[in-house]
Amino acid sequence: MGLPLDENQAVTLSTAAQAFLRAAPAIRLPQFLYRFLTRPAKVAGIRAQFQAGEDKVEEALIKQHGLRLERLVVAGVPVLVITPPRVADDMRDVVVLNIHGGGFVMGTARDRTALLTAAEMRVPVWSIDYDLAPEAKFPLAIHQCLAVYKAMAATRDARRIVGVSSSSGGQLILAMLQIAHADLVALPGALVLYTPASDISGAGDSVRANDGRDVVPFRMSLALLEQNYLDGADPLDPRVSPLYADYPATFPPTVISTGTRDLLLSNSTRLYWKLRAAGVTSELLVTEGGWHGHNWEPELDEGKRMRAAVYEFVRAQMATRS
Amino acid sequence: MGLPLDENQAVTLSTAAQAFLRAAPAIRLPQFLYRFLTRPAKVAGIRAQFQAGEDKVEEALIKQHGLRLERLVVAGVPVLVITPPRVADDMRDVVVLNIHGGGFVMGTARDRTALLTAAEMRVPVWSIDYDLAPEAKFPLAIHQCLAVYKAMAATRDARRIVGVSSSSGGQLILAMLQIAHADLVALPGALVLYTPASDISGAGDSVRANDGRDVVPFRMSLALLEQNYLDGADPLDPRVSPLYADYPATFPPTVISTGTRDLLLSNSTRLYWKLRAAGVTSELLVTEGGWHGHNWEPELDEGKRMRAAVYEFVRAQMATRS
Repeated sequence: MGLPLDENQAVTLSTAAQAFLRAAPAIRLPQFLYRFLTRPAKVAGIRAQFQAGEDKVEEALIKQHGLRLERLVVAGVPVLVITPPRVADDMRDVVVLNIHGGGFVMGTARDRTALLTAAEMRVPVWSIDYDLAPEAKFPLAIHQCLAVYKAMAATRDARRIVGVSSSSGGQLILAMLQIAHADLVALPGALVLYTPASDISGAGDSVRANDGRDVVPFRMSLALLEQNYLDGADPLDPRVSPLYADYPATFPPTVISTGTRDLLLSNSTRLYWKLRAAGVTSELLVTEGGWHGHNWEPELDEGKRMRAAVYEFVRAQMATRS
Repeated sequence: MGLPLDENQAVTLSTAAQAFLRAAPAIRLPQFLYRFLTRPAKVAGIRAQFQAGEDKVEEALIKQHGLRLERLVVAGVPVLVITPPRVADDMRDVVVLNIHGGGFVMGTARDRTALLTAAEMRVPVWSIDYDLAPEAKFPLAIHQCLAVYKAMAATRDARRIVGVSSSSGGQLILAMLQIAHADLVALPGALVLYTPASDISGAGDSVRANDGRDVVPFRMSLALLEQNYLDGADPLDPRVSPLYADYPATFPPTVISTGTRDLLLSNSTRLYWKLRAAGVTSELLVTEGGWHGHNWEPELDEGKRMRAAVYEFVRAQMATRS
């Protein structure tokens, strides 16, 4: 029980982060068991268990911050609009497009990041309830996200849209924006990628180095994707792993959040250099000891610090572009 | 033989980086042997062996780039001045102060970083030959670096000095600038910290996570410092581990270079957040699969990319301050 954490590691973390890592289950199973546990028939159970935990956190956040939730259907896709009690002055004409995470198989538009962004940045958030795998396979969710984005960009200045995504939502938003760009649709004014699944082929230094140190076992997440989402698609295809796509210099300024324990540290780092090489304004933020998703812990010091830095990046971009 | 490198990790690295890691010795010894191998009587041998390898690289760099080397004594301290054949137009009134690495016990002012900086940024470099441990212990080298810096700042606009350091040189430059600031000496215009030893207490996520994956075993470096440099000083003292110091908002804009394999990834990351919280302009650059010192490999793609990003940061700072 508990992820590895020695004294040298503990002293650099908040007390709550230490407690989180010590309480996190350390799962180490043979590959055939990961495959068994993540096959399509198991997903309903995984999803229900995950959502039961999230529901409590989400409802508490809604209450604490007095958020208003409203369901829309945009371009045929369900969208949850989350509005804070008071929109910040510098966010009056800004809207966030949020794509939640959950390995393509779980999670909802009411995810923590959508709620925290609305509450803490004081900005309206449109969060997409795309169809989940295994019922919907690659690339359906990408096209749903694209349809919503196109509808939003058609009725407002796209530069006042901020794209926000978490984990697998990073794959969706990056893949969707590739198509939008090819379709000559104007791109958002800024992009936030919390621990993005920009490469789902399994490449990277951190997937090996942080396996067993992060909250999700690497090979379990690969088995989950392969059996439920990919539907035989090639993970090295740039439409599947957008890290391999070409980025135009006009791609939105992008801030990427990760941590030293994150399985997706390499995904984050590699994407940073790729965007930088393309001439895109980008910032990589790395939390000491930060695991996959430390950023969406509402009260964790490390999470709050990360989100504050992300909001600062977004506000600076919105200010230079207004 | 060779540091751990699986297929998923290899595909994200340059061919030369893969070869480097596969050829690097993987040393795993019991602690008493690390202590034995790093006691003061062994240092002369370590130093000679290290320098024999470096001499070849350094001489090749001098020849390749046509660098001119001149020895000065500044405030009683030997300084090596390295001048490129042609100084860049935007660097005409800029001078780099370089503090080399080598765990306080080895290395010279003619280190790769001094030479590469002079050649690639096309700027004059003043590199300090501070006294090494165990002959000179904490805090002598700090005071030597301070004396040179004060002499330089006395005869020119300090904002046109760029501090550059590698590894243990990061401890020296950060500790030295703390004293300079307390002494009301103007601070440099920019600071470059290649994989800085900002905390030599052994704290951090990466010292454990990257132990056995990086080029130096963590416990060997701790034994080396403790037996040769510290002389009983408390590693948690902010004058010893400058990560624990307070930074003024007027501290120089700082760029920090590290990598996902670097033992000092956590040192780098933590310092970034510390400076940011103090209101200091700072940038953290993380190379995928980058080990401690990948940045000073002259021909390695990952090293060249890192140095180019560092130079870009420095040039931008010099441009805004001229």
